[in-house]
Amino acid sequence: MNTADLELPVSVPSTALFTDQYELTMLQAALRSGTAHRRSVFEVFTRRLPEGRRYGVVAGTGRVLDAVENFRFDANVLDFLRARDVVDEATLRWLADYRFSGDIHGYPEGEVYFPGSPILRVEGSFAECVLLETVVLSILNHDSAVAAAASRMAVAAGDRPLVEMGARRTHELAAVAASRAAYVGGFTKTSDLAAGFRYGIPTAGTSAHAFTLLHDSERDAFTAQVESLGSGTTLLVDTYDIAEAVRTAVEVAGPGLGAVRIDSGDLLLIAHRVRQQLDELGAKNTRIVVTSDLDEYAIASLAAAPVDSYGVGTQLVTGSGHPTCSMVYKLVARGENGEGGTEGAGDGRTEVLRPVAKKGLGGKSTVGGAKWAARPRDADGIAQAEMIGTGPVPDELADAQLQVPLVLGGRTVGREPLDTARDRHRRALAGLPLSATQLSRGEPVLPTEQA
Amino acid sequence: MNTADLELPVSVPSTALFTDQYELTMLQAALRSGTAHRRSVFEVFTRRLPEGRRYGVVAGTGRVLDAVENFRFDANVLDFLRARDVVDEATLRWLADYRFSGDIHGYPEGEVYFPGSPILRVEGSFAECVLLETVVLSILNHDSAVAAAASRMAVAAGDRPLVEMGARRTHELAAVAASRAAYVGGFTKTSDLAAGFRYGIPTAGTSAHAFTLLHDSERDAFTAQVESLGSGTTLLVDTYDIAEAVRTAVEVAGPGLGAVRIDSGDLLLIAHRVRQQLDELGAKNTRIVVTSDLDEYAIASLAAAPVDSYGVGTQLVTGSGHPTCSMVYKLVARGENGEGGTEGAGDGRTEVLRPVAKKGLGGKSTVGGAKWAARPRDADGIAQAEMIGTGPVPDELADAQLQVPLVLGGRTVGREPLDTARDRHRRALAGLPLSATQLSRGEPVLPTEQA
Repeated sequence: MNTADLELPVSVPSTALFTDQYELTMLQAALRSGTAHRRSVFEVFTRRLPEGRRYGVVAGTGRVLDAVENFRFDANVLDFLRARDVVDEATLRWLADYRFSGDIHGYPEGEVYFPGSPILRVEGSFAECVLLETVVLSILNHDSAVAAAASRMAVAAGDRPLVEMGARRTHELAAVAASRAAYVGGFTKTSDLAAGFRYGIPTAGTSAHAFTLLHDSERDAFTAQVESLGSGTTLLVDTYDIAEAVRTAVEVAGPGLGAVRIDSGDLLLIAHRVRQQLDELGAKNTRIVVTSDLDEYAIASLAAAPVDSYGVGTQLVTGSGHPTCSMVYKLVARGENGEGGTEGAGDGRTEVLRPVAKKGLGGKSTVGGAKWAARPRDADGIAQAEMIGTGPVPDELADAQLQVPLVLGGRTVGREPLDTARDRHRRALAGLPLSATQLSRGEPVLPTEQA
Repeated sequence: MNTADLELPVSVPSTALFTDQYELTMLQAALRSGTAHRRSVFEVFTRRLPEGRRYGVVAGTGRVLDAVENFRFDANVLDFLRARDVVDEATLRWLADYRFSGDIHGYPEGEVYFPGSPILRVEGSFAECVLLETVVLSILNHDSAVAAAASRMAVAAGDRPLVEMGARRTHELAAVAASRAAYVGGFTKTSDLAAGFRYGIPTAGTSAHAFTLLHDSERDAFTAQVESLGSGTTLLVDTYDIAEAVRTAVEVAGPGLGAVRIDSGDLLLIAHRVRQQLDELGAKNTRIVVTSDLDEYAIASLAAAPVDSYGVGTQLVTGSGHPTCSMVYKLVARGENGEGGTEGAGDGRTEVLRPVAKKGLGGKSTVGGAKWAARPRDADGIAQAEMIGTGPVPDELADAQLQVPLVLGGRTVGREPLDTARDRHRRALAGLPLSATQLSRGEPVLPTEQA
């Protein structure tokens, strides 16, 4: 599937310029020195989870596959690079033919991860792999940050549905990706129409204060809304006086009113009062939707309140305090000119690449060698550790491996429906020790062990 | 200018779906009740700055103008809305002809703002204005958050250039907008090629650890880079041992080496050592570029270090702790059916609209009426207050008004080169009391006063 084939609200003819300039200048130097074609293995991983978080959530994998397929240097892009003198003519000629022909393995979307987990492994020539660094990290760092927040909120919400409403709090296209990541992390719906259009995510809407203020009275507004949208609609009851609004809402819509929305004040207190009032008015099935700067802690604090669903905006799209992950894309092994295979990649190649690692300072060192990852489980199916190693996978861990093929020989093989990733996340979370779902700060719930 | 006419890396055929579903359902109800055509005034403002911040920076205005021009409901978008049963056929017919025909005034891009500043005022029918809420807020909330962080970093950096390198830490298209906002806020260049392509921002690149690790030795890597990119290139010296790398770098490139980059460790200490070593090797003009999770405080702490430029990533694109602003888009005045003009809009209309306001709870109240804003200055040209009022502008404030026309009768009149916004921000900052540029936490540097 090429995204150009889809009728997107935003067509992305090429993702090639979502790239830091140095990727191209390094390419030029490597082409000239003859090292550009050395077989290389790059890995995406993070050295740490955000402080206090117990697990991370892989999200964006499907978008990475789109980005790799659409990573092409069109004529107008090449003209730009030439006009700006970014790289020389030999490099431009090489870029004109660019098409990723290597392999990508990784944790499937929705899976959880821990410090050091080799979330993505990109193998091919140095030239074809290095160019993907920026866009791959953009996608995974953003989407995984949102999915991690969504997952914690979904845990806090339990069986109650969560609606993503954050579009207005983030870049308009980041919002579409955020809706997608939130859905993977456990959200139910989104208010963002572009996310519904692009990814098929169910959409939902309530009503806004502007609609009430537009009318000469709250009763006029409610009447207009119910006449047009039916009594199953959601009426916003906190523009003026909540008790009066609830009374008017049930008078106008009848006891079959779908829902009322509360967007301000002490939600715990107000939800109890509104529930009691609705019940007294006979609107026993009218649901209560709350919104208003909710995060996972606020959601958890409403667990005992008579709330039926949550609308979450700002804190979701900004990763609830952690708007980006710290994933990096590092060269971990390479061959000599034009030679070399992959080690431990399970694809039958036997030539061993040379592990490489940065020494660096301040905790920025890396571990050389292409890595496998496995998550052994106890008799109850609960994960015990995140095992990471280089070289052959120990037999006893063969069935517990985490990485799956996503691209083989340039061909995308890992595409899947978004619901598959969403279901996988639910299962992955259920397979972690119970303390994974505590909202309080703590250590990663699985230790990362080098095998 | 329609963005479809530009050769963009990302063409945006329509921005209409960057919209929360409730905007459309409210439209349907208002069309049916006959209130959709009431003349309305919506205002964008924020109730507070991020905690401790002394000023905000308006950014994204130019992108808002693009988004409004491209807010069209194409056939495939209408088909989607029909298939999902989002709105009824009458509403779909109305949407098919949608084109904003109203007026937009606002603070020009790069201007500073304070709590309550009426940053944008959108006037027209309720129907045409309410639809723009989500995308207008997405753009302003994101871009202004990045610009505010950029501005503080630029203050901390003084005369030293700042390079935006955050693409990998945020959504790939948010990154392009972030580069743009950073440029408005005072950054000099970006590493993001798409930002160079789309907005003409100067681009820059250094080198990465992967390039060094690709080669058999650091010397091989430096030689390859210098042979291809010339001795004016920037060599990355912290892959292994810094002192050895600096020695090798000057040997390979000669004393005319352009720059060395340090990306880890105690930058203050290392910069001093590297400077001394470079000077001793005769490379007195070789610049030192530092990168590594810099924020405005880290930049300020390096003021006395022999650093020539800064590369900033994560903390810039995430707004240095505040990744979104809390701007809202509120109905503040409206007419009766099809009647009414604007009050205080300075366009000669005299009919008075009815001010409307939400009562609400928890600090979410609004102030009714279309607002003017003015910033009077003392004899030295230093701003004294942010004056906000409804009704006629007092004569003595007429020359100190902040809002400018951006769209009149649906026609964009406020487009300007990005450098104009960048220059405006520099001037706006210079016209604030000196305490504006303190990095420490404090109150907004200007009091907001209701006239």
